Amino acid sequence: MNVQIVEVGPRDGLQNEKELLPAQVKIQLIDKLVAAGLKRVEATSFVNPRWIPQLADAEEVLQGINRPEDVRFSALVPNVRGMERARASGLTEIALFMSASETHNVKNINKSMEETFPVLREVAREALALGMRVRGYVSTVFGCPYEGAVPIDNSRRVTDELLEMGAFEISLGDTIGVATPKQVREVLAAMLRDVPTERLAGHFHDTRGTGMANVAAALDMGLRTFDSSIGGLGGCPYAPGAAGNISTEDLVYLLQGIGYETGVDLNRLVEAGAYIQEQLGRELSSKVLKAELASKRAG
Amino acid sequence: MNVQIVEVGPRDGLQNEKELLPAQVKIQLIDKLVAAGLKRVEATSFVNPRWIPQLADAEEVLQGINRPEDVRFSALVPNVRGMERARASGLTEIALFMSASETHNVKNINKSMEETFPVLREVAREALALGMRVRGYVSTVFGCPYEGAVPIDNSRRVTDELLEMGAFEISLGDTIGVATPKQVREVLAAMLRDVPTERLAGHFHDTRGTGMANVAAALDMGLRTFDSSIGGLGGCPYAPGAAGNISTEDLVYLLQGIGYETGVDLNRLVEAGAYIQEQLGRELSSKVLKAELASKRAG
Repeated sequence: MNVQIVEVGPRDGLQNEKELLPAQVKIQLIDKLVAAGLKRVEATSFVNPRWIPQLADAEEVLQGINRPEDVRFSALVPNVRGMERARASGLTEIALFMSASETHNVKNINKSMEETFPVLREVAREALALGMRVRGYVSTVFGCPYEGAVPIDNSRRVTDELLEMGAFEISLGDTIGVATPKQVREVLAAMLRDVPTERLAGHFHDTRGTGMANVAAALDMGLRTFDSSIGGLGGCPYAPGAAGNISTEDLVYLLQGIGYETGVDLNRLVEAGAYIQEQLGRELSSKVLKAELASKRAG
Repeated sequence: MNVQIVEVGPRDGLQNEKELLPAQVKIQLIDKLVAAGLKRVEATSFVNPRWIPQLADAEEVLQGINRPEDVRFSALVPNVRGMERARASGLTEIALFMSASETHNVKNINKSMEETFPVLREVAREALALGMRVRGYVSTVFGCPYEGAVPIDNSRRVTDELLEMGAFEISLGDTIGVATPKQVREVLAAMLRDVPTERLAGHFHDTRGTGMANVAAALDMGLRTFDSSIGGLGGCPYAPGAAGNISTEDLVYLLQGIGYETGVDLNRLVEAGAYIQEQLGRELSSKVLKAELASKRAG
């Protein structure tokens, strides 16, 4: 396996679904994703259920899923309380998040960027002391729905702070899906001057059709870890018009076609996508899912 | 303008639409595409209306559209009769087509590849003698729905034959949308050993989400001409499961983001996409169209 996929569908993908899904559906989805060969799964988040009602069942989901030893499960947490809930559920990995743009950070987590750093620092310190792994997300790296262009220095600052807090990996997010391959190369070139490639992951959305081209550009720049969401589920509630994450099916197809090994069985992955599509009762955006299901119907 | 876009929506995009659109709708669509700044438009085809009933109104459409002097209109033709109809409609450019795989060629045009060459040769000779420009399409370059992998030598042979017939440009088609960036680089590297980049165009479909990544790879290899379809309309009736062409809106967004000039006004292009989406009464696949319309609705 020379490219790592971080499956974020159960968290980033489902969090904006209005209709509440039963925990059992999420458990089955995660089990199917793991059965398809995914080794890193962001399974849920421990935020206040009033903010994200869809993920209020975090404990139940984590208790219900199969947890093979070679699969790393994580959860998004906003604060020490969330981290403690994650740990109580047996997780050994959490993800912290903030934006590279002030306005998006305020709208998303109700704090200025400067107010956010000490909160995350405390969570990271306590998690690390408990032997947990900490991942960092930087949102709006490639553009902000409120401020437009985001200076690379902002993303760089947040990345540096998160690394300095002890994060093992920073996921650079194109939250509203505006990035193009040229910008991906520019941002990564600036980052990679001091940050080793293995500490960075790409988190792309496909709002304007550039998701896979951005992955290809990031691969050229040396990145080997990518976040994606089964079926292309997802979006951002505070980013108007933002469509979903890149689809795991499409990502695996691209990577396999280029010759990378992902350890994922595409047929079983499509089964997982078909499952959650049926549960949600609407067509998901994954192109490979569409093509594979059409081809099965045809014959 | 340093990247040329060949808009194929009115032909490749509409040809598989079951419900017949009035000629007036096609005329308005083409006028909007031209108003958006597109300089090359494949407007229709002159094939037997029994094969493609949707384009039986070729003459009426070509008579109805605005034809600014700096815009090149063309039509797909399968034989001398089609070429003569195109010329009678005042066109000075036609496009010929065949497949790089035997089975697809037989299913698509009812002739073996060897039987096809002399037919196309005659059309090209007569068209050139009349002062017309001839474009060549090679289908299934990156994979065949019946034969799977297609040897690069096949595509190379067809490309060479078409160039030798006098075609000014060969459009290399990923008819069923299976190509990945690595394959695009390999095929183009083999082609470009002897064929100048300006004689080749990329014609990608987005069936499995790789369309834009393939464009980016082709740009890296030096290609500067791409076919696309407004809204992402299109597909291939003889390629099961094949989704549409890459969308012109998404292509322009990508190219502008990378810094290429296309001469196209993206806002006006989105108006054209919105128009044909409304006329067809279903959501088209273009991501930029979706994002822009969602953002307009949001205010």
